[in-house]
Amino acid sequence: MPLASAFAQESAPLPGPGLDIQNGAPPQPDASILAGIIHPSQVAGLSSLELEQLAAEIRRVLISTISHTGGHLAPSLGVVELTLAMLATFNPERDKVVWDVGHQAYAYKLLTGRAHKFHTLRQAGGISGFPNRAESRFDHFGVGHSSTSVSAALGMAKARDLAGEDHHVLSVIGDGSLTAGLAYEGLNQAGATARRFIVILNDNEMSISKNVGALSLFMSRNLSARWVRRIKREVETFLTGIPGIGGDLMEIARRSKHSFKNFFTPGILFEALRFNYIGAVDGHNIEELRETLALAAALDRPVLVHVLTRKGKGYAPAEANPVLFHGVGIFDPESGEPARSASGTISYTEAFSRAICALAEQDERIVTITAAMPEGVGLTEFAERFPNRFVDVGICEQHAVTFAAGLATQGIRPFVAVYSTFLQRAYDQIVHDVCLQNLPVTFCIDRAGIVGEDGATHQGAFDLAFLRHIPNLVLFAPRDEAELQRGLATALAHNGPFALRYPRGLGPGAPLPDAPQALPIGKGEFLCKGKSGLAVIAVGNRVAPAVHAAGQILEQSGKSVTVLDARWIKPLPEEELRTVFASHHSILILEEAALAGGFSSAVLEFCSDAGLLGTRRVRRLGLPDAFIEHGTAAVLRKALGLDRESIRKEMENMLDSAF
Amino acid sequence: MPLASAFAQESAPLPGPGLDIQNGAPPQPDASILAGIIHPSQVAGLSSLELEQLAAEIRRVLISTISHTGGHLAPSLGVVELTLAMLATFNPERDKVVWDVGHQAYAYKLLTGRAHKFHTLRQAGGISGFPNRAESRFDHFGVGHSSTSVSAALGMAKARDLAGEDHHVLSVIGDGSLTAGLAYEGLNQAGATARRFIVILNDNEMSISKNVGALSLFMSRNLSARWVRRIKREVETFLTGIPGIGGDLMEIARRSKHSFKNFFTPGILFEALRFNYIGAVDGHNIEELRETLALAAALDRPVLVHVLTRKGKGYAPAEANPVLFHGVGIFDPESGEPARSASGTISYTEAFSRAICALAEQDERIVTITAAMPEGVGLTEFAERFPNRFVDVGICEQHAVTFAAGLATQGIRPFVAVYSTFLQRAYDQIVHDVCLQNLPVTFCIDRAGIVGEDGATHQGAFDLAFLRHIPNLVLFAPRDEAELQRGLATALAHNGPFALRYPRGLGPGAPLPDAPQALPIGKGEFLCKGKSGLAVIAVGNRVAPAVHAAGQILEQSGKSVTVLDARWIKPLPEEELRTVFASHHSILILEEAALAGGFSSAVLEFCSDAGLLGTRRVRRLGLPDAFIEHGTAAVLRKALGLDRESIRKEMENMLDSAF
Repeated sequence: MPLASAFAQESAPLPGPGLDIQNGAPPQPDASILAGIIHPSQVAGLSSLELEQLAAEIRRVLISTISHTGGHLAPSLGVVELTLAMLATFNPERDKVVWDVGHQAYAYKLLTGRAHKFHTLRQAGGISGFPNRAESRFDHFGVGHSSTSVSAALGMAKARDLAGEDHHVLSVIGDGSLTAGLAYEGLNQAGATARRFIVILNDNEMSISKNVGALSLFMSRNLSARWVRRIKREVETFLTGIPGIGGDLMEIARRSKHSFKNFFTPGILFEALRFNYIGAVDGHNIEELRETLALAAALDRPVLVHVLTRKGKGYAPAEANPVLFHGVGIFDPESGEPARSASGTISYTEAFSRAICALAEQDERIVTITAAMPEGVGLTEFAERFPNRFVDVGICEQHAVTFAAGLATQGIRPFVAVYSTFLQRAYDQIVHDVCLQNLPVTFCIDRAGIVGEDGATHQGAFDLAFLRHIPNLVLFAPRDEAELQRGLATALAHNGPFALRYPRGLGPGAPLPDAPQALPIGKGEFLCKGKSGLAVIAVGNRVAPAVHAAGQILEQSGKSVTVLDARWIKPLPEEELRTVFASHHSILILEEAALAGGFSSAVLEFCSDAGLLGTRRVRRLGLPDAFIEHGTAAVLRKALGLDRESIRKEMENMLDSAF
Repeated sequence: MPLASAFAQESAPLPGPGLDIQNGAPPQPDASILAGIIHPSQVAGLSSLELEQLAAEIRRVLISTISHTGGHLAPSLGVVELTLAMLATFNPERDKVVWDVGHQAYAYKLLTGRAHKFHTLRQAGGISGFPNRAESRFDHFGVGHSSTSVSAALGMAKARDLAGEDHHVLSVIGDGSLTAGLAYEGLNQAGATARRFIVILNDNEMSISKNVGALSLFMSRNLSARWVRRIKREVETFLTGIPGIGGDLMEIARRSKHSFKNFFTPGILFEALRFNYIGAVDGHNIEELRETLALAAALDRPVLVHVLTRKGKGYAPAEANPVLFHGVGIFDPESGEPARSASGTISYTEAFSRAICALAEQDERIVTITAAMPEGVGLTEFAERFPNRFVDVGICEQHAVTFAAGLATQGIRPFVAVYSTFLQRAYDQIVHDVCLQNLPVTFCIDRAGIVGEDGATHQGAFDLAFLRHIPNLVLFAPRDEAELQRGLATALAHNGPFALRYPRGLGPGAPLPDAPQALPIGKGEFLCKGKSGLAVIAVGNRVAPAVHAAGQILEQSGKSVTVLDARWIKPLPEEELRTVFASHHSILILEEAALAGGFSSAVLEFCSDAGLLGTRRVRRLGLPDAFIEHGTAAVLRKALGLDRESIRKEMENMLDSAF
């Protein structure tokens, strides 16, 4: 399909009450500018008016496409003008751009040769939701996790200097991402390096949820009163000491507030890190942005350009609710209403949300902690009901865990709720601060296993492998939402480190217990006891498909298969494993986690050490030794042989080839 | 042994040319104040003169003890007065103190009931080299890794506030530790929290090696010229604009430099993070410290006290060479000369150091990166010879790895040299920034396995388990120093992520190759081929003991044992493993790494999946599922059954019970 017609298809006008595209010329599909952008360098040749029109076109494509595919709408809407100004100033054939997190790079994708494929966004085989080096030579660094951009760009700048080249290197980072220590580590080195290096601070006063932390307060456009007062006081003291003109100077000092404030906040922090600070500039004024970026490009040293943007800009529903539209599912582009799921079951996240509130009602030692994702992990209700016992630390998984360890030393029972993939960043803190001291911190690990459309940077593949070797840690995976609630009760009753890992999405619909009781740690549950010689040992969300398949097989062939819900990755249900290995000749182990070092690996270790393996045939299904790209969870599970059907087939094969 | 006599033994006078104890009263062993300190609260009752005398006594004990045990001498010498002033101001029965890293807490240990056991420092069963909750109720948080103190202390402060209590919580953090992002994450939340909270910045302008980064430059007492100039310029511009008195004001502004500088550096950064900044104060003036800490204690909000100390203070050799005396082995207390090892072999670190220089000579793409430990990881020679291609990023393992990824995208071949235990902090960056993008970054993982006296926080137990499940990563463990050099050549020849893990200490003395050749990846080496039916599959530093034991057994009983050096944890030497399993009935797998998820776990996975296990008997020796405390490496290996003798016995047992 030629570029133009593909675009025309994508950019079908979507006027409606929800649309509020600023400066938008009336839709002129025939005069599409975007369709004519074959190479990003063309942007530099556009007039101001054309750039404005292009911005409006891009917004229409973004809203239209994401209403069908889901995706990170609000962040991308916020940086349309910034993206255009960047491409008008810099040449990504030569200059390197690292987008922090990358969920805001959709406009950049549209302008760098991917408009014709943009409708495949986040679908299997389609355009990734994040910059990806394998997808385009203009994606200079793959991202997904927060706050890597300064470090990566600095590496590129160092390589440039070693090669004696002089192109520009840019990091585009949100103010939310600045809360993470990694960004600070990068800025700290960059400032000392003193080479040509541009950081664009995309300040929308949001990460995903509302920002937290002193820096955020400091950056805020409304504040800094205390700090300004202190500066004024110092200046006053200093000036008053001069004999003769003290009085006049005091008067001047009193009138000085505004001028000082502009200089001293927030640039001072970046100046302290030896960056030249430029800003703040209006992130929706392309001309002002172009002028500012040109100024930054002329400096031969680290410079930080502070750009003020509005998340969701140009689409009223997203401006009104940037948290919802940060990462949104399918929605009605006219009303902004998300498509409703017809399912009667609740998500694991919701089951967590309800249970942690119920437990906190009974036990005031409970404190919950999130790293900038209260909505995602299901802590908004908790935050409302127990504001004093809820802490959002910002995008700081490391700090979240060590902070929890500090709390736990004082008798508090912290529950750290975090996505599996983001917990990777706190591995050392889990080992060194929590488990080494055997402190009762509970990790509520959401989005474990396949997450789907967010792709390789976000799959929760490794948690079992990076956690189960840590001494003192108890590691649990519930088979359904009711077991998740029982697992939380177990964690509270256990006086040591505890982790629960549970998947994204809906549970199988188990009835929720009124008052969840603690489970016996290290005890599995036989859900089917069979006589066919085949046993399935499963954990987490692969238990239900195994039970279902066992039922089908019994119905169809009369063969009964044993199914053990192991529940515990650590300590293993040793007694039940001994039973299984003593009475079955074929054993299938299932997990939605990396097979290398994961649950089935633990079972092999135990059974080998205990001499249980003998001549038994053991098969393992789980995630392979590869990064798993984007696509719907259903598509991915099928491709990986982990869906219900594949599991049933494997069981049938094992039954057929039994010896 | 009563406290007094134990102390008398420890504090035997050690005058000599090396000693330079400031303000030290003439040694008066009979009038020992330290011997009388049964409880830390006694410190508050001492006069200034007694505190000075006590400081001198503590220094003598530190120098004497550490000259016998080895340990972190210079950091502890630097904070003797600070520790005394803290204990004179705060009560650790009630107030909580978190020492960052903790290697500077020896004086604190001496003053909190551990003087009589201090001679057991770092020995198995003795006093830990770091604060440890299990060791003393005055050690409020266990530490070892850098930059956790602010987060942990903030957790304690939050718990205090929830309980409605009002005791103090202190974090004592070095300026080097401030380079790590975790510290910044903690400060950022603390500043926003606005509760009673004290951070003591122990500024000695060093981490272990010389500090790096913009913040360090900024903090430096010598600098800030550019920044001060800019402030002056702003003030001038502002003042000159006032009609009538512009000229006078300009004159004032010109005279203002000194006064402004004091206020604006370095407190401005902490004020930006909404801390009250107090400082800088002389860290060796106990009275000034007491007054300042009392002032800080009176504030009911976050306050940072900036204390200037000298690393190694009071011991001339340590003041002259704080890097050597940061963590020192046994030395002569009079001369400060380290005890020389008589061995003719070189350490793995030295083998790395030589090989990486030789490779860099040939290949200018090579850049090396250290996280604040150029000496420890063996990069000082590289840094001298290739200053442009050497980067010390400070205590920033996360940034080191992502920075390396950025370099690698541009054709550079970065080698990140880091201790195993500290690499834990970069787990997410290894997954997300390096391996996901399949970038050719090499991790040179020193101090893998047992490290000995530094104890549980520093053992390199988990690297195989936290690395081997990461897709695309090649994972190699050399059996000797020559293989390490060949491994480096292999890494350079390989176009993807590569990790080498090698132990602390001396290699077995293999002759070094003149020009190390690349090894075939995934190919093991049979070092002995036997007929007894027993095979040993070993990796890394457990290969040599296995070969040695096989030789002894052959000599003593005539039974020949197969020994396979697997070399590769990933990809496994599959062909050699098939050979071993096809022709042996008993297999012993050896690794100096956590058994859970480690090398032997990988072998079990492969052999189970490939159907190789059959009825073979497999035994695994490695590190157990427990944190391993301090002691000499030899003592620990013996206790863990991993020394040469234990391995031989296990082999003999397996031979005797062969079926």
